[in-house]
Amino acid sequence: MTRLEINQDLNALNKQIAAENRNKFKSSGLYVINMMGSPGSGKTTLLENILPRLGAHLRTAVIEGDLATQNDALRIEKTGVTALQINTNGGCHLDAKMIENQLQKLELDSLDLLIIENVGNLICPATYDLGEDMRMVILSVTEGEDKPVKYPTAFLNAHTAVITKADLLPYVDVDVNVMKRYIAEINPKVVVFETALKNGLYEAEQLVEYILEQVREKQRK
Amino acid sequence: MTRLEINQDLNALNKQIAAENRNKFKSSGLYVINMMGSPGSGKTTLLENILPRLGAHLRTAVIEGDLATQNDALRIEKTGVTALQINTNGGCHLDAKMIENQLQKLELDSLDLLIIENVGNLICPATYDLGEDMRMVILSVTEGEDKPVKYPTAFLNAHTAVITKADLLPYVDVDVNVMKRYIAEINPKVVVFETALKNGLYEAEQLVEYILEQVREKQRK
Repeated sequence: MTRLEINQDLNALNKQIAAENRNKFKSSGLYVINMMGSPGSGKTTLLENILPRLGAHLRTAVIEGDLATQNDALRIEKTGVTALQINTNGGCHLDAKMIENQLQKLELDSLDLLIIENVGNLICPATYDLGEDMRMVILSVTEGEDKPVKYPTAFLNAHTAVITKADLLPYVDVDVNVMKRYIAEINPKVVVFETALKNGLYEAEQLVEYILEQVREKQRK
Repeated sequence: MTRLEINQDLNALNKQIAAENRNKFKSSGLYVINMMGSPGSGKTTLLENILPRLGAHLRTAVIEGDLATQNDALRIEKTGVTALQINTNGGCHLDAKMIENQLQKLELDSLDLLIIENVGNLICPATYDLGEDMRMVILSVTEGEDKPVKYPTAFLNAHTAVITKADLLPYVDVDVNVMKRYIAEINPKVVVFETALKNGLYEAEQLVEYILEQVREKQRK
């Protein structure tokens, strides 16, 4: 049995469980976002900012993935949103089975939106379907403008990308328009939002509106 | 055959090739550093800065690991140092076999120092021995002070840690002393350097001195 075959088997199993998750989400009218990005790209900070805005319209829950600690779930719960913490104990990504195990703890029919914050890693999470509707990549300006071409996998499969920490642009050698052009080169369909949550928000409001539209569209179907 | 057994087999194979690499390095009196950190943590910028300083004393080469592009090898070659680029085509880490393949392209006996810049990923590279003498973790202040406890694997096995972008501390909610305390909590033996390469260097000179000492100590043996 070769390594490739083993990976294919594991991937096929993950795809199967992801499809089961997707069916559960569909029958509950639940929209699901899978957030991916490097450690420190600003995923949790973005959630802290948009959850209160989304919460005015939607019943929302969050699943947090980290190697260790409950830090992020505790941060999310301060916004008043239910947060479940998965610790992967060194594992570099969430998989569909880990999500399935958490779903038993949530009343899916009483929710409109589930946001899964994946393990901080720009590479591995992109190849594991969790059953989500939207794959969102988070990239901070401090990571450098060439990251979309150097780490294309996450952007190839993304629906949305959120560029964070734009308030630091004056202090780093990064042209945000070059970063956006690189994202478009990898995947021209990605809808990009630029945020700076400590300094005027930029397009965080538009991101909230965009998510609301997507959730409503799924619920209409 | 279970997943655990498969991983153990692959890991045992990697360990064996890493041991062979280590023997080659030893017989050539070559010191090897394995640099790890998230995308955009500042690994290549750190190399651009320290390579000219190291080059005054040591014959050095660099191996660059990235999912895609030759960007980093081209940046390194501008410093006058030989740089070989590995593209993992989506792979999340370098392994010992990839390094072995590159060693044929270098005259090991004519080198004192080989620096391997791993794929940008704070998780997976930490579990793959390449045969190196020093494991160095790069962490930028913009990633947030709690990253060592949330992503402990890399720090558990590290010899040195370089905190980068300290010039951005005035603009982010990060206490660098808390970050250092978290690193020490995970692994008190890690030697930590704080750098800010766009603004006065901080401890980059001490880092160069430290590397020089380690190389000389290996060559004396």
